[in-house]
Amino acid sequence: MSVKHDLGLTVGKNEDFSEWYSQLVTKSGLADYAPVHGCIVFRELAYAIWEKVMSILDAEFKKIGVKNVYFPLLIPERLLKKEAEHFKGFTPEVAWVTHGGDEPLSERLAIRPTSETIMYEMYAKWIRSWRDLPLKLNQWCNIVRWEIKSTKPFLRNTEFLWQEGHTAHATRDEALQQALEILKIYKRFIEEYLAIPVLDGSKTEWEKFAGAEATFTLEALMPDGRALQAGTSHFLGQNFSKAFEITFLDRDGSTNYVWQTSWGVSTRLIGAMVMVHGDDKGLVIPPKIAPLQTVIIPIFYSEEEKARVFSKCKEVEDRLLKKGVSAQADLREDYTPGWKYNDWELKGVPVRIEIGPRDINEGMLTLFRRDKSERVRIRDSELEDKIVLFLEDIQRSLYEKAKNMMIEKTGRAKTMSELSDLISRGMMVEACWCGSRECDEAVKEETGASIRLIPFEEKPVFSNCVKCGKPASKVVYFARAY
Amino acid sequence: MSVKHDLGLTVGKNEDFSEWYSQLVTKSGLADYAPVHGCIVFRELAYAIWEKVMSILDAEFKKIGVKNVYFPLLIPERLLKKEAEHFKGFTPEVAWVTHGGDEPLSERLAIRPTSETIMYEMYAKWIRSWRDLPLKLNQWCNIVRWEIKSTKPFLRNTEFLWQEGHTAHATRDEALQQALEILKIYKRFIEEYLAIPVLDGSKTEWEKFAGAEATFTLEALMPDGRALQAGTSHFLGQNFSKAFEITFLDRDGSTNYVWQTSWGVSTRLIGAMVMVHGDDKGLVIPPKIAPLQTVIIPIFYSEEEKARVFSKCKEVEDRLLKKGVSAQADLREDYTPGWKYNDWELKGVPVRIEIGPRDINEGMLTLFRRDKSERVRIRDSELEDKIVLFLEDIQRSLYEKAKNMMIEKTGRAKTMSELSDLISRGMMVEACWCGSRECDEAVKEETGASIRLIPFEEKPVFSNCVKCGKPASKVVYFARAY
Repeated sequence: MSVKHDLGLTVGKNEDFSEWYSQLVTKSGLADYAPVHGCIVFRELAYAIWEKVMSILDAEFKKIGVKNVYFPLLIPERLLKKEAEHFKGFTPEVAWVTHGGDEPLSERLAIRPTSETIMYEMYAKWIRSWRDLPLKLNQWCNIVRWEIKSTKPFLRNTEFLWQEGHTAHATRDEALQQALEILKIYKRFIEEYLAIPVLDGSKTEWEKFAGAEATFTLEALMPDGRALQAGTSHFLGQNFSKAFEITFLDRDGSTNYVWQTSWGVSTRLIGAMVMVHGDDKGLVIPPKIAPLQTVIIPIFYSEEEKARVFSKCKEVEDRLLKKGVSAQADLREDYTPGWKYNDWELKGVPVRIEIGPRDINEGMLTLFRRDKSERVRIRDSELEDKIVLFLEDIQRSLYEKAKNMMIEKTGRAKTMSELSDLISRGMMVEACWCGSRECDEAVKEETGASIRLIPFEEKPVFSNCVKCGKPASKVVYFARAY
Repeated sequence: MSVKHDLGLTVGKNEDFSEWYSQLVTKSGLADYAPVHGCIVFRELAYAIWEKVMSILDAEFKKIGVKNVYFPLLIPERLLKKEAEHFKGFTPEVAWVTHGGDEPLSERLAIRPTSETIMYEMYAKWIRSWRDLPLKLNQWCNIVRWEIKSTKPFLRNTEFLWQEGHTAHATRDEALQQALEILKIYKRFIEEYLAIPVLDGSKTEWEKFAGAEATFTLEALMPDGRALQAGTSHFLGQNFSKAFEITFLDRDGSTNYVWQTSWGVSTRLIGAMVMVHGDDKGLVIPPKIAPLQTVIIPIFYSEEEKARVFSKCKEVEDRLLKKGVSAQADLREDYTPGWKYNDWELKGVPVRIEIGPRDINEGMLTLFRRDKSERVRIRDSELEDKIVLFLEDIQRSLYEKAKNMMIEKTGRAKTMSELSDLISRGMMVEACWCGSRECDEAVKEETGASIRLIPFEEKPVFSNCVKCGKPASKVVYFARAY
């Protein structure tokens, strides 16, 4: 079934997943490789998807009282050093500015790999009393992390876009609840809009954010069996408030350190969407996140027909826009309908409406859904009602397909040989674990897979520790990771 | 009349303009100084204003077919060097990245001072035929220019936020028209939303953008008589397309270089708004750009009154929101009404609604307009209709006041002594000019003022050249500049 013209993909998703992904992101016009170490250009389509991500999440943040700000890109080294663990964690991947114009700087400046340090230096100045709390700020910005490992568009780039939220609270419990509330917002967004099911839980002590007391994570499973961290929320405790001296005068007259959280999602969500939903013909964008939901293609064989068909296409475009469905009639004259079909399938538009003279004569419209490559004919008069249901059905169906994929690719192991076997077959593995770092690291050494998360939903222990055979305390998920 | 409490301004706008400005941007909560050379934090209020700027302009750009993208922050030195004039113009203010992690880079990377070079390197790859034109891309991003001169919040910072549009066209005329069309969009936005009148025209050859064939500019006049460049649009001709080899196959089979434009406005618009409209009590934000248009303050003397008044405040807030007017009832209990008045006046909210028991009993509401410090009582039932007219009147009145200021502060000089005198009195000066660079530079040497623009609207020459006394070819505007 896969159409292979010169602009299309030359390799199938199941043939060579990595090559398929690389071809897809460039050929669909999502991104292009930039002439800078590990950087990509976010082209029109990727940026339009990111704009939708921003607008939806931003509205959710604002509902819980978060306000947007913008802090400097450059962080003096002495600030980055203030929280020791944090510095140790990030310094290997910092891009350093050493010169301004022709002058060497007296202190080198880090391009932000994350903004805790520069933000909390100001929090120390702004927060005085309990009246200033909670403080909930967020910024949408660019981040640079110098990648030594191989880079991959959207998933691992030297520069990416993200949002980072940073809150400060009067009590430990309030901060902890905030970190968890954000994770719920992320989960709902990723499942409802991106149609990607995610597991929620905690990172192990040794995989948590540098400087955090706990890191909560959402893990999505990619078709090649690798887990992808789709969003994280950190409970920072008082680690940073003590390093940065962020104190407040409480109602009872005592002076205390604030409790903090930080949390973020990034453009790697676009990569996850590509991997989970894309197929051999190209992208498949879930309707609720698609910058363009329907494309209308005219089909005609004579100049006379052309006029009628074009006018009908424009009418349909207009009716869809009025209904709140994004639509575009593709009236380009230098391309055949077949070429346009392939082009829009490559770009992942959820629904195509094909309009020819016969459709007009019969008062019918032909709808093609991208996800299942199925055509359905509807009465012209039903368009407004049917399109909405159609898009909803596509959205639901994509989520279900991804959910089934996740279930199919998740196995259960009681022994290392079972675990090893499942991992080598491209799966994620539920296994029992004693709680030791040694076992996690030994599993990684042997299989390339490590603990991706300790799920919030505690499952009954069904064996001894998969690695050491000692009594297990928890059921956790092992997988290779992006 | 000016209220001077400890949180308010301690100096008047006419006393010490520069100090007034510095106090205002920090005390109003617009911005704070960051612990990085020449950088500020864009706090909640400034960023909310910037979000409004972005959403309004972005919609205008999209109407004319511009699409958003995101290009890398870091530009390899060899790319920056490709267009010689451009490199010469920007290299003194480039922040250079020389290390990634612990490793020195083989080629140093510039943090973008503007993105022509990195974008056009990709344009050369993407543009193949006339079908690919026009290409109209824009990005909203951060920019770093290492400032050696003294910095000033919003007006001159090491890092600022902006949008940069970059278009490529098949013909010279189309590109030129595009550059002018954008300037019109900017002008309309700045005058209608920011309520700041601007002059439009061209920069002199020696003040144009490094690498451009012509630079079109909008100049606003600040209360201290300095001109502020509020937006620019560059006609790049084929300078960059030749340096970057951006060619296309035209309909007639010939291969030609594209014609280009680039254009931008930045967060310095916020600085202009502060300077033009602010007063001794704080910011005055024009209603059409104000993140918060109305604030509702309860006044009460007993617990019983409090309940009634709070409930009325919430009702009014609700009615305003339904009407599409942004509103917030300030129900904080630890502050007096007087304290709240000062606080919201400092923050520039256009309208305050004061609600006390007497207002409720009489079915009346008290509206206070920030710009004129005037109160008006209206019937409660008229709120929805009156508020809209009230906000419109404030918007119009702010523009008129700024327009009058501009007229008052613009003089006309036939001689150097007249010019000098006007400049020293804090004015902008219309004068006749022979067209030579020497005269512009000599005027600058003597007075600190130089040609800010050659207006599109040609005015009849009324004297010989103000500097050399030879026959003049044009009437131009001289001023000191931000």
